[in-house]
Amino acid sequence: MRKLVRKGVEELVPYPPGKPIEELERELGIKGSIKLASNENPLGPSPLAVQAVMDKVSTLNRYPDGSGYYLKSKLSEKFNIPSGQIVLGNGSNELIELIIRTFMSSGDHAIQPFPSFLVYEKIVTGAGGDMTSVSLSNLSIDLKGILNAITPKTKVIFICNPNNPTGGAISKDEMIQFLREIPGDIIVVLDEAYCEFVTDEKTANGIDLLDEHPFLCVLRTFSKLYGLAGLRIGYGFASEMVVEYMNRVRQPFNANTLAQAAATAALDDSAFVHRTLQVVREGLHYLCHNLDEIGVQYIPTQTNFFLIKVPGGGKRVYELMLKQGVIVRSMDSYDLPDYIRISVGLPEENERFIETLRKVI
Amino acid sequence: MRKLVRKGVEELVPYPPGKPIEELERELGIKGSIKLASNENPLGPSPLAVQAVMDKVSTLNRYPDGSGYYLKSKLSEKFNIPSGQIVLGNGSNELIELIIRTFMSSGDHAIQPFPSFLVYEKIVTGAGGDMTSVSLSNLSIDLKGILNAITPKTKVIFICNPNNPTGGAISKDEMIQFLREIPGDIIVVLDEAYCEFVTDEKTANGIDLLDEHPFLCVLRTFSKLYGLAGLRIGYGFASEMVVEYMNRVRQPFNANTLAQAAATAALDDSAFVHRTLQVVREGLHYLCHNLDEIGVQYIPTQTNFFLIKVPGGGKRVYELMLKQGVIVRSMDSYDLPDYIRISVGLPEENERFIETLRKVI
Repeated sequence: MRKLVRKGVEELVPYPPGKPIEELERELGIKGSIKLASNENPLGPSPLAVQAVMDKVSTLNRYPDGSGYYLKSKLSEKFNIPSGQIVLGNGSNELIELIIRTFMSSGDHAIQPFPSFLVYEKIVTGAGGDMTSVSLSNLSIDLKGILNAITPKTKVIFICNPNNPTGGAISKDEMIQFLREIPGDIIVVLDEAYCEFVTDEKTANGIDLLDEHPFLCVLRTFSKLYGLAGLRIGYGFASEMVVEYMNRVRQPFNANTLAQAAATAALDDSAFVHRTLQVVREGLHYLCHNLDEIGVQYIPTQTNFFLIKVPGGGKRVYELMLKQGVIVRSMDSYDLPDYIRISVGLPEENERFIETLRKVI
Repeated sequence: MRKLVRKGVEELVPYPPGKPIEELERELGIKGSIKLASNENPLGPSPLAVQAVMDKVSTLNRYPDGSGYYLKSKLSEKFNIPSGQIVLGNGSNELIELIIRTFMSSGDHAIQPFPSFLVYEKIVTGAGGDMTSVSLSNLSIDLKGILNAITPKTKVIFICNPNNPTGGAISKDEMIQFLREIPGDIIVVLDEAYCEFVTDEKTANGIDLLDEHPFLCVLRTFSKLYGLAGLRIGYGFASEMVVEYMNRVRQPFNANTLAQAAATAALDDSAFVHRTLQVVREGLHYLCHNLDEIGVQYIPTQTNFFLIKVPGGGKRVYELMLKQGVIVRSMDSYDLPDYIRISVGLPEENERFIETLRKVI
């Protein structure tokens, strides 16, 4: 009998069913837990975005605008890039999928740094592609190693900048050099989900680099800075040709109505952006200062999250903190078993994290 | 130089950029146009769903529940099917994609009736598959013809019941007979987007048929009956094994937070369901009565839309009505050039449609 599933699907890890926090709390018999595990915006969603949702909710019986006209116009204006070079996704996750489904054939090869965002490998494997992971060097992306891993079958290269879960960033000079050495028929996915949090001015900015490689795709999201993770809206910049091909494969109603409206409004919410960046900056300062005091090592970050090296191992500390109602991310599946990753929270959440960490280690 | 895109992508029709109605109205210099083109619910979204959106909007900074716990529990209870046999999608469109990406390899073969929902072919072609279209026979799905089209390479068969755009339905007896003749290793996608509008009691109901074929996938949506097209939420029933494989390929956050909450609430909105079915039934009665009076032919329907045979051709009538601010669907791309398809609207929309039709023909 022939194989039931497409090549690669058998190799994917079955999805763990999982439970909402409310159900977990019930099982553990705890209440009021805090979540510092998913690099979300602790302030909530952008208030202008919330208002836009309210304004649009009565129109939900109608299909979304399949062309994303208003959101793309707004992005075009803000970033000075033509609408024809912008593509919208059901989160930037879907854009990663869309790139693979448009450009990668079964048996093609892709390269990623490791550890990095875990979704790249899942999508490439599920599409029947082969992934080479190039280990970080001193917790930084090894651009030379990635260049050396290129084969005639390489079709896609992923770069997450700043990198998740390490928080480090690649400079503009390094990135230009790197892009120029990549053959012209390889798709380069530059995932900039956290770029708005960057403070180091030397860091590469994908938008300035679109001319440096014919098939550069820059991916961004409204999930983090704008606090819209629950609505699923991401966007990408690429050449007109790349965007046109992606739009052929894209389902016309992939970006929902409320996501489009909320994102369009959020782009004007400079007060919320300002507050978010301030909370992250001050939170990082508080957390690092206290970790120094406790004598625990951590990795400097350009984002709203960072790695902490915890005595006794990340998984153990994750489990102990969970029982105290503090949800952080264990780094086992990222092959960093000594670390946990935490997102910067509200001041009171950061305090509770520090208190709980003191207790459990 | 090697091919840039995956097999099948070149063959896809480039997506027409398109414009929102507001922009179209501005260009045409018209106002207050009505849309009877997309089989949407004319009453708006379910009020209980709207309330659920309002209640959840403040949590949008958090990622959605990747397991869809509450919505699947509710569906499980309502339809008496275990949660492990339910899969959620960003609209049922995404579930069609997910089925193809999970089970179909490049070069595999699929079969669809034609005309039917146009998305099937787009997705199969874009995945590098080959589609055989079996023409309708007297505007009904030709089940015998589909069985005869099966080859050793056939991996997926699509059946839309009731069929879009014709509105006709297959009976339970016919469907059972059909399913029993399909080899056991073929995925059968039974798209029931409009099943709640069916009035003919003999019509097949996919939920009763899950045991008739090992790889039957029944797809449903909240877009139509519940008025949630803009939020993108569909669901599917299949065997645990099929669902488990689809969940491996699925992105965990494909169904957004507001969609999950709205859909869960909508399932309890029996008052809205009742009103919707009444508006559709009465609207159909009014429209058919008036078309009889005008002397225009139409196709009987089990759904909230139907085909009308218009003198002078569907495209011409579509264009003339558009200029009058009445948006219907021309059937050119469905190879039914003599027809337009209209969705049942509110009483005043149905009246305006009839008036405008009288004018243009």
